[in-house]
Amino acid sequence: MLFFTQCFGAVLDLIHLRFQHYKAKRVFSAAGQLVCVVNPTHSLKYAPTRCAAAQTSAEQGILPPCHHHEAVHDPQLVPCTCPLFSCPWEGHLEVVVSHLRQTHRINILQGAEIVFLATDMHLPAPTDWIIMHSCLGHQFLLVLRKQEKYEGHPQFFATMMLIGTPTQADNFTYRLELNRNQRRLKWEATPRSVLERVDSVISDGDCLVLNTSLAQLFSDNGSLAIGIAITTSKVHNAEAEM
Amino acid sequence: MLFFTQCFGAVLDLIHLRFQHYKAKRVFSAAGQLVCVVNPTHSLKYAPTRCAAAQTSAEQGILPPCHHHEAVHDPQLVPCTCPLFSCPWEGHLEVVVSHLRQTHRINILQGAEIVFLATDMHLPAPTDWIIMHSCLGHQFLLVLRKQEKYEGHPQFFATMMLIGTPTQADNFTYRLELNRNQRRLKWEATPRSVLERVDSVISDGDCLVLNTSLAQLFSDNGSLAIGIAITTSKVHNAEAEM
Repeated sequence: MLFFTQCFGAVLDLIHLRFQHYKAKRVFSAAGQLVCVVNPTHSLKYAPTRCAAAQTSAEQGILPPCHHHEAVHDPQLVPCTCPLFSCPWEGHLEVVVSHLRQTHRINILQGAEIVFLATDMHLPAPTDWIIMHSCLGHQFLLVLRKQEKYEGHPQFFATMMLIGTPTQADNFTYRLELNRNQRRLKWEATPRSVLERVDSVISDGDCLVLNTSLAQLFSDNGSLAIGIAITTSKVHNAEAEM
Repeated sequence: MLFFTQCFGAVLDLIHLRFQHYKAKRVFSAAGQLVCVVNPTHSLKYAPTRCAAAQTSAEQGILPPCHHHEAVHDPQLVPCTCPLFSCPWEGHLEVVVSHLRQTHRINILQGAEIVFLATDMHLPAPTDWIIMHSCLGHQFLLVLRKQEKYEGHPQFFATMMLIGTPTQADNFTYRLELNRNQRRLKWEATPRSVLERVDSVISDGDCLVLNTSLAQLFSDNGSLAIGIAITTSKVHNAEAEM
């Protein structure tokens, strides 16, 4: 009986996802764009059980025990760049992607232009929507965060970061686009490196910022569709000169 | 002696304006764009001396005494649409432009694409930067407002309104663009009619909204350059279909 109930639940989930996908396709009607439904994750970073949360992850056996980073360590090692957890993991930049996929179960998508469909925008802050985006031979981390920078007034912050060095990041331009009901909002910038940390980018306000009212104007039935495109900076500069 | 001091002050003002103009031209390098330096006006709307302020205006002799609007009045008359003052003026929609120019000294500019250069962004809220824009046979009111929607956290709100009816407004699309330091933010929407009032548009959040940190990223030495373009909706729809 339990098996049949679970099967029925899975089928309902699939129908719901398919419906969300159809809605996003309708909003971003450009042919060939990949739509990715991204479910929210309540940020456990500031929760008291953060160590327990990290230790119940798939990598439980591999992770070192939860403790503060040592003062002296290999300068080539970078801390975990996942903005969701205070994860004690450290590793080389080249293995950050596999750590994020395996430990934090963050999806990775291919394609120059994709649509990020964040569901359940009404959930209380702090909440994150995260995917990785593989494009132009590099991997990018897209983070949409709902956060109360000012108490009682949640805002949405969206940014794209290169899983690479700041020098590598300077070679790219990313664009985030919201488009609904004859309103269009576009943000274009150079991605920051994950080494600079998502928290700093958001506290600096150097990203796409939406008030709750504006997010509601762009969202459809609780979901927000964000069109994403990445180009190399040379193309961007050539366009600016035209 | 006083005459020479005033002349010297005027020359200094001219040099300052020329410098601001040059800076805006550098930011928006597209040839042929008209740059308009817009100085801030501290909003007197909520000040206790608002009646005195209205009565010291150029139209002092013409204005009726400061009192609440009568409950019954001609439905073809519209109240003053100037967002700066609680002005008791009422008139037909066709004469709103001349009222705004003559009484409230709001400048009017011609051209399909202009650059609005708002100076002294650091001034405390509430502050407004206002011009009228004549384009495609109609007049538009551009308002940039610094306001504390949440106490202690000023934000900037920018919107464009048609000095016409809501039905006429539906025929147009306006675009506001900020561009500096490899960051670009674009807002496109259908203008609202001035009959809907600026205050409602801003409280709904249906406009370009900037946090102070984002406004600082886009401003240059305390001035914010906003590129403005107006098109008819048909052109906009054709572009969307491409």
